[in-house]
Amino acid sequence: MIVVMKSGTPVIEIERLSQEILRWNIIPEKCVGVHKTVIGLVGDTTALNPQEIQKLSPFIEQVMRVNKPFKRAALEFRNGEPSEVLVSTPNEIVAFGQNYPIVSVAGPCSVEDEEMIVETARRVKAAGAKFLRGGAYKPRTSPYAFQGHGESALNLLAKAREVTGLGIVTEVMDTADLQKVASVADIIQIGARNMQNFSLLKQVGAINKPVLLKRGMSATIEDWLMAAEYILAADNPNVILCERGIRTFDRQYVRNTLDLSAIPVLRSLTHLPIMVDPSHGTGRSEYVSAMTKAAIAAGADSLMIEVHPNPSLALSDGAQSLTPNQYDELMQEISPIAQIFGRWSKKFPIPTAYCALPMQQMAQKV
Amino acid sequence: MIVVMKSGTPVIEIERLSQEILRWNIIPEKCVGVHKTVIGLVGDTTALNPQEIQKLSPFIEQVMRVNKPFKRAALEFRNGEPSEVLVSTPNEIVAFGQNYPIVSVAGPCSVEDEEMIVETARRVKAAGAKFLRGGAYKPRTSPYAFQGHGESALNLLAKAREVTGLGIVTEVMDTADLQKVASVADIIQIGARNMQNFSLLKQVGAINKPVLLKRGMSATIEDWLMAAEYILAADNPNVILCERGIRTFDRQYVRNTLDLSAIPVLRSLTHLPIMVDPSHGTGRSEYVSAMTKAAIAAGADSLMIEVHPNPSLALSDGAQSLTPNQYDELMQEISPIAQIFGRWSKKFPIPTAYCALPMQQMAQKV
Amino acid sequence: MIVVMKSGTPVIEIERLSQEILRWNIIPEKCVGVHKTVIGLVGDTTALNPQEIQKLSPFIEQVMRVNKPFKRAALEFRNGEPSEVLVSTPNEIVAFGQNYPIVSVAGPCSVEDEEMIVETARRVKAAGAKFLRGGAYKPRTSPYAFQGHGESALNLLAKAREVTGLGIVTEVMDTADLQKVASVADIIQIGARNMQNFSLLKQVGAINKPVLLKRGMSATIEDWLMAAEYILAADNPNVILCERGIRTFDRQYVRNTLDLSAIPVLRSLTHLPIMVDPSHGTGRSEYVSAMTKAAIAAGADSLMIEVHPNPSLALSDGAQSLTPNQYDELMQEISPIAQIFGRWSKKFPIPTAYCALPMQQMAQKV
Amino acid sequence: MIVVMKSGTPVIEIERLSQEILRWNIIPEKCVGVHKTVIGLVGDTTALNPQEIQKLSPFIEQVMRVNKPFKRAALEFRNGEPSEVLVSTPNEIVAFGQNYPIVSVAGPCSVEDEEMIVETARRVKAAGAKFLRGGAYKPRTSPYAFQGHGESALNLLAKAREVTGLGIVTEVMDTADLQKVASVADIIQIGARNMQNFSLLKQVGAINKPVLLKRGMSATIEDWLMAAEYILAADNPNVILCERGIRTFDRQYVRNTLDLSAIPVLRSLTHLPIMVDPSHGTGRSEYVSAMTKAAIAAGADSLMIEVHPNPSLALSDGAQSLTPNQYDELMQEISPIAQIFGRWSKKFPIPTAYCALPMQQMAQKV
Repeated sequence: MIVVMKSGTPVIEIERLSQEILRWNIIPEKCVGVHKTVIGLVGDTTALNPQEIQKLSPFIEQVMRVNKPFKRAALEFRNGEPSEVLVSTPNEIVAFGQNYPIVSVAGPCSVEDEEMIVETARRVKAAGAKFLRGGAYKPRTSPYAFQGHGESALNLLAKAREVTGLGIVTEVMDTADLQKVASVADIIQIGARNMQNFSLLKQVGAINKPVLLKRGMSATIEDWLMAAEYILAADNPNVILCERGIRTFDRQYVRNTLDLSAIPVLRSLTHLPIMVDPSHGTGRSEYVSAMTKAAIAAGADSLMIEVHPNPSLALSDGAQSLTPNQYDELMQEISPIAQIFGRWSKKFPIPTAYCALPMQQMAQKV
Repeated sequence: MIVVMKSGTPVIEIERLSQEILRWNIIPEKCVGVHKTVIGLVGDTTALNPQEIQKLSPFIEQVMRVNKPFKRAALEFRNGEPSEVLVSTPNEIVAFGQNYPIVSVAGPCSVEDEEMIVETARRVKAAGAKFLRGGAYKPRTSPYAFQGHGESALNLLAKAREVTGLGIVTEVMDTADLQKVASVADIIQIGARNMQNFSLLKQVGAINKPVLLKRGMSATIEDWLMAAEYILAADNPNVILCERGIRTFDRQYVRNTLDLSAIPVLRSLTHLPIMVDPSHGTGRSEYVSAMTKAAIAAGADSLMIEVHPNPSLALSDGAQSLTPNQYDELMQEISPIAQIFGRWSKKFPIPTAYCALPMQQMAQKV
Repeated sequence: MIVVMKSGTPVIEIERLSQEILRWNIIPEKCVGVHKTVIGLVGDTTALNPQEIQKLSPFIEQVMRVNKPFKRAALEFRNGEPSEVLVSTPNEIVAFGQNYPIVSVAGPCSVEDEEMIVETARRVKAAGAKFLRGGAYKPRTSPYAFQGHGESALNLLAKAREVTGLGIVTEVMDTADLQKVASVADIIQIGARNMQNFSLLKQVGAINKPVLLKRGMSATIEDWLMAAEYILAADNPNVILCERGIRTFDRQYVRNTLDLSAIPVLRSLTHLPIMVDPSHGTGRSEYVSAMTKAAIAAGADSLMIEVHPNPSLALSDGAQSLTPNQYDELMQEISPIAQIFGRWSKKFPIPTAYCALPMQQMAQKV
Repeated sequence: MIVVMKSGTPVIEIERLSQEILRWNIIPEKCVGVHKTVIGLVGDTTALNPQEIQKLSPFIEQVMRVNKPFKRAALEFRNGEPSEVLVSTPNEIVAFGQNYPIVSVAGPCSVEDEEMIVETARRVKAAGAKFLRGGAYKPRTSPYAFQGHGESALNLLAKAREVTGLGIVTEVMDTADLQKVASVADIIQIGARNMQNFSLLKQVGAINKPVLLKRGMSATIEDWLMAAEYILAADNPNVILCERGIRTFDRQYVRNTLDLSAIPVLRSLTHLPIMVDPSHGTGRSEYVSAMTKAAIAAGADSLMIEVHPNPSLALSDGAQSLTPNQYDELMQEISPIAQIFGRWSKKFPIPTAYCALPMQQMAQKV
């Protein structure tokens, strides 16, 4: 953080201000120029708010943040090395990260009944998915819309996991449901609307399950990384970021604007793996294929795609779901693109160092 | 909801579609024109999603919503009459609503210690406030920033209530804290970041405390009323809407863009009382006065303003807080403006019908 | 502008960079601290782009602008004094500015025929307007929509001016039409869509007519002031800024989001007078009254309101126009509000120093 | 357009309204249902504004547009066939369109001097570009920033065209410069800030040069297609749409948010070719490569990329320019991706029917 003093600030005021700053365990480092004095703040300034510092003295011209406000999520925290999130599923250990093949997650918006979820799981597995997604608890704009089958849907997900060996990704909306969700999910999803539900972030940080953190509808890149920082700071290092479209002025033909530039931007700021959800990102099944391909080309580490056996009868989000056949076709189409980037394979090796460890320990180690 | 069929749709397809619609207990009403057939959906269409209906037939040209998706929040639900939210405080019963004086809520962002909160309460009461605001649980972008003093802060709020007789407005962030917060708060605040925390909305709907529902940062008017609908549908009719600024492309000089046009728009859509928070709405104390006056002129029923005894030392949001003296001055300045609209008085009568009832019953009755 | 060097930057690189900076006639002022060196750029940095400086050396950590990029539009340019824009109309000299009564501008979106424009002029004059607005050249989203009657409409405006003595405000869309428009208009309007039509800005800067500069739909406050700077830098000091709503994510109930916080923000940055257009700002006549009142309370110097004798038959923007009766009523309602701020009068004195001068000289002098 | 009448509307009012509608040469087609009457408007409704129709009767519940407001830009206008824009350059005739290889356009933001522009042209040609871009007239936010060398820069572009045989793309900002620009440019660019400069659109529509129409910063897809419609309606069919990033709430790490979903959305709405500009779209050279690849995968027909021999010394937009070496490398990297989609070749055949025609006629014929 840098504090620029107005021209002609009395020396005594600079002294007074320096003393105030010291009270916060921050070292004020004066750079005295001919016209202006600039005070650099040395120390952990992550908790400081530039606007609040501004109030400390009427002689302050401007306060500017130089360092990023996130620390554990920062690329520097791992010396520029991408992190990998390893997830143990019945079939295999799956790694999310920049040095691994693209991981496909697919499934319906909501879990509706056993037949549909097991059948969908089978189909997406056959197409190459490693994880089944499916909502048990659904955040719906309207209280009159289908809210998810809750606990019974969790049981159906467990069943689909057992039958297919796929990992399970499902959303938690309330701290009260966390244990139940965690008992079934291999990856716990925090939805866009809860990205700044800080109580929930702290609690998923306190358990040792991988977390999929969706970007909030109007979250800046920095807001999003700070939300991840909540989980990391609570000592859960297994966070995957998921871009799912932001809210802009144009919502006539798409539900959200999928911000693919977030991928290279995040790469330059953080070590965390990046997933893209083109289904929510556009809200329309006819645009999913183009945006999936674009996401791969932009460098995504993972893809989340909605698949429903009969989208026109879906209890939620049918308009953005692919049929199993469409998903199959899409997976075939994206294979050569992902191969160009060296990121496609049905089988890929996990670092042997991890293989002997049970998942809990692994997660701690990563 | 209206379904427009493409020209030349076979009669048999219209029949098939009508049968599908009937399965949802909605009556399809055909309007057959020379070129096109239009199907009106009669019944409770609040839970239907236009995009999902679109998928029912390839012959559908467009699906359009005619009715509002909110019902209890709609102005029509009260036949065009504004609702009033009555809140019992130690000093008096305070009414929020279009036919009552403007209600002032003031206080610090966070409760810091007993002296500061009690002293602030005294000062804002003297200036004319009816409620003290103060955060015990604070949603902060950074996990390293001050998170609020939690339960002990609730005790300090109770103390300030006892000393001054002011009502208390404080935020709940987690369903797990709801009972504790409700035991102290006269009005429970749902913050912008939790506006679509549907679990929390359902639970505040299930108790009988007035709820202050802040608008989410990128919530449309309709999203916001649907969030209110969650509370109303759970049978708590005492909801106050609070505009606190939305996120736009320009954030250089203000933290948010205070959307005052929300006031007349809400008036034309809902019966619920409307509060405005110019402190968060601008994020800068120097703009609070102008925007407070504008909010009154636009028709706000209530104002929430941050006041801190020493903003430059505030643990949070100091940049947007007024000093008690500034608040005092502001209250004097706004008095003649509010008087023009017939909405200013230190004392105002509550309908006698309510006066004999204990608060719980009153809330149910309103 | 401040350039922060990375820790450990070689002294020789700082020297090299300083030489580069000197080539631009900017003096680099080093502030050497224990950990970091900061270089302050002293001189006219308005034309420098921080991102371009960043590229000068890989050792630059960050480049930050300290001064505003606008100069003549800045409040400091007039030592904190508001400027006044004096406009000579047949009836009187009208002053726009913070120390003058609120100036009302009213009239239809487009000039349709002689009867309607003259009649509207009479009605708005009777209600207290000082200027008639009316479009001869209309920027319309669709090429198939009515495009304005062009030159013949200018003649009708001249007629209305002659009959009523009101000043005329009308829009220019093309440099080729500027002379024609300037021959009739007392104030030349630059519309929102042309706010960054820099050729047009330069040319209206080169003539000596007052200019009404509407804010672009997604223009930041800084973009807008830079657009004003184009006109000021071309030596036309008579610029009035007009807020008319910005584009945000919510456009269901309003056409634009009227950003009233722009008023106090502009007050803290510029000396130029500020107008508000609640008609375009909301796009709906039923919201105009509330937002007009709010604009006054927020400190607007002038109001532009659409009035049409028969809105339902208007060739453009009928949905946002008031009838003459509604306008009359509104002017009566706003009078007491403006009076509280000491900004209402039918007659007000113009500084005598100006009164003897013909308009051209006056404009130059202001 | 569909007009939904309120329940209980008197038959006589429906008759009156139908007569009003007939006056506009639109046929009102009544669909009488049990509860409601719906009036379909049959005829050319492109010029009608739903909000204005609403005003025709207090019994109107809602007015909804069914058809698109654009006609010549619509995919239906060509029966679902993509259009091709053929441009004659000294080297060859280049086709832009969905059935042709991706066309690369590259060059500096501004033309600085002969050596730099000719050298850049040579380098981008060697890398595979078919067109040189370079600004002679530059729209700059600040009046103090470099404004382009104007006419003399046009001469330098002509020189570079002569030397390399590349086609020239350059921007026109003012109708007064159109002839000069058209005498050098093979494709005339309309910049984002002028996308709704309707005078300019009409004039480029009136000449027979291909036009590159950049999307405005806050233009919806529909606004953009309506701007294209201005050019098409003036009888110039050779329009290429260029996505260059939109303005959103997050501008910290990118200058604009590149909206790649615009590509599949446009494909479903229009026959016009689509270009993407990842340089302006991100504003940062380090993100250009990822977004270029994503644009290809999303289906772009053409790419515009900024290349400057020495970005750190560029007079404008250096931060987003690649060096010639970086461009070379990028072109090699994208080749396999474009090949997957069958859209890469150094040579490709032009339909022979066109080959004998001089360009002017060709353009008319296309």
